[in-house]
Amino acid sequence: MRTLPNLLGLIQEYQARNGFPEFPSELYEPCSYILTLGGKRIRPALLLMGYELFRDDVEKALPAAWSVELFHNFSLIHDDIMDAAPLRRGKPTVHTRWNTVTGILSGDVMLIFAYRFLAQSGDPDVVARLLNTFNRVATEVCEGQQLDVNFETRADVSIPEYIRMIELKTSVLLGGALEMGGLCARASEADVQHLYQFGRNAGIAFQIQDDLLDTYGDPEKFGKQVGGDILQNKKTLLVLKTLEVGSRQDRDELNRWMYTGQEAPDQKIAAVKDIYNRNGIPALIEEEKQQFQREAFRHLEAVSVPEERKTALRQVVEDLLGRES
Amino acid sequence: MRTLPNLLGLIQEYQARNGFPEFPSELYEPCSYILTLGGKRIRPALLLMGYELFRDDVEKALPAAWSVELFHNFSLIHDDIMDAAPLRRGKPTVHTRWNTVTGILSGDVMLIFAYRFLAQSGDPDVVARLLNTFNRVATEVCEGQQLDVNFETRADVSIPEYIRMIELKTSVLLGGALEMGGLCARASEADVQHLYQFGRNAGIAFQIQDDLLDTYGDPEKFGKQVGGDILQNKKTLLVLKTLEVGSRQDRDELNRWMYTGQEAPDQKIAAVKDIYNRNGIPALIEEEKQQFQREAFRHLEAVSVPEERKTALRQVVEDLLGRES
Repeated sequence: MRTLPNLLGLIQEYQARNGFPEFPSELYEPCSYILTLGGKRIRPALLLMGYELFRDDVEKALPAAWSVELFHNFSLIHDDIMDAAPLRRGKPTVHTRWNTVTGILSGDVMLIFAYRFLAQSGDPDVVARLLNTFNRVATEVCEGQQLDVNFETRADVSIPEYIRMIELKTSVLLGGALEMGGLCARASEADVQHLYQFGRNAGIAFQIQDDLLDTYGDPEKFGKQVGGDILQNKKTLLVLKTLEVGSRQDRDELNRWMYTGQEAPDQKIAAVKDIYNRNGIPALIEEEKQQFQREAFRHLEAVSVPEERKTALRQVVEDLLGRES
Repeated sequence: MRTLPNLLGLIQEYQARNGFPEFPSELYEPCSYILTLGGKRIRPALLLMGYELFRDDVEKALPAAWSVELFHNFSLIHDDIMDAAPLRRGKPTVHTRWNTVTGILSGDVMLIFAYRFLAQSGDPDVVARLLNTFNRVATEVCEGQQLDVNFETRADVSIPEYIRMIELKTSVLLGGALEMGGLCARASEADVQHLYQFGRNAGIAFQIQDDLLDTYGDPEKFGKQVGGDILQNKKTLLVLKTLEVGSRQDRDELNRWMYTGQEAPDQKIAAVKDIYNRNGIPALIEEEKQQFQREAFRHLEAVSVPEERKTALRQVVEDLLGRES
């Protein structure tokens, strides 16, 4: 069993050996560029860890792992155009550094390269099964992005709808990565399904935690500006929960803040936090997160391999979900 | 052996039985819409005809045929954004009827659906081989689109570069459709390669003919405005050939016309046509086209099936390339 840093090293070496073509440079340079902006490589690492539950020759799963990372980066390029985002991890996004035409076309070819690496992921029967999982998840990610776009202009988003959106937009890809690791290792259908559900539920828990940390995170540990969601009037789970359980007066007050700009930001963050606090929102959201987290680990437990093989994977996901507020 | 109308009927029935999901409608309606704008369905028809060279149960090749048609329509949606084209076949393009965000995301999911139909195209070993061909061709189509974008701002495009661009942007997909038909039918590697080269060369001949017809076509038969390329100052093969073989004076005169707008359109078309005519450009372009056409049919002849099985395919491609000026 390899450690996470060891697996990340393997991924980095694989990336270095499998760069994009040089020509036409206008098409491929942006693909290489987005991959230099960092990122935790959590999806390919999960795929490799899913594989390692069953087999030791983890190099065999590297093409599939890289495929998932390329898919993720394709979605970042196109999402950044759709969100008109100027920066990603403090650097210019592809369509900002180049232009929208370049962003569309480089994203397209990156998606196609994801399928090229998928095609190199094993014997035809394994590739065919990987292709089915990949296609299903890729479709769902597009559907999730569409729901996210739709929600921006809707005032009546329910909590189940919101959970479904984050599930499709981000969590199914984490589940899919683990499922693909199991498929590469030719694990049983039952184990493959448990791996998918482990990743899907952990992914939802992670997204819920992300909403919570945006307002309640430790400024030293949280990468982004604490309170950013409040200033951007984002309809996070905290907002939706307040609109569900809050007093009439607090709901009205929150709605008023949601239509103000970024003037007096500290005052706005403090006022909205007060509304959350007096309605017990942090504890309710934490409980929502815990439900998905518990469900996730129930599925990891059900995978039919000795407990000691699960240690590394359990640790990584506990580290991700353990950043308690 | 089925006739072309018969095959087109099969494709239409398959499309009717395999529509997009209903939800989220904002994502999938534009996918259905672009497919209603018409189009000759030449790519899926070629795939089925490639299959029918070897086998009679052509229904088996319908998922792969539909996959190629979806890929083509994905590329239309994204190309129309990149070209800022308001209309396609007289109807609003997707990004015009909806918006750019919708165009990007619906195009993405349409590409993924192309891979979904590919995954249903046969046994795992056939799917794996189809996937390799599809990935190679899809990559080349993106590269061709990038070269086309690059050429718009370059003054020194050579004829071989131009031929390579149209080859990548449009011809490899025709070759790829025929190759995939052969792969579905489990034809020999040699026959599959001949099919690809038949389609690739015929595709280049067709594009060269398209440049010629834009200026010299019969206004009654040609779908678009005759002379449109001249008015848009497009660097077609006629322009590049004139810049290669024309007299110094005619090259200078053509260059001057290339930087004028659309004022006095009839005068401009007549003047540029005069330059072409006195330098013998139509005959030179026709000869260029004939070279690729002859090469195409040499490859069709080399396919190791009885001549009578090739009749329908030969007829269809001769009809496409036979619209002489």
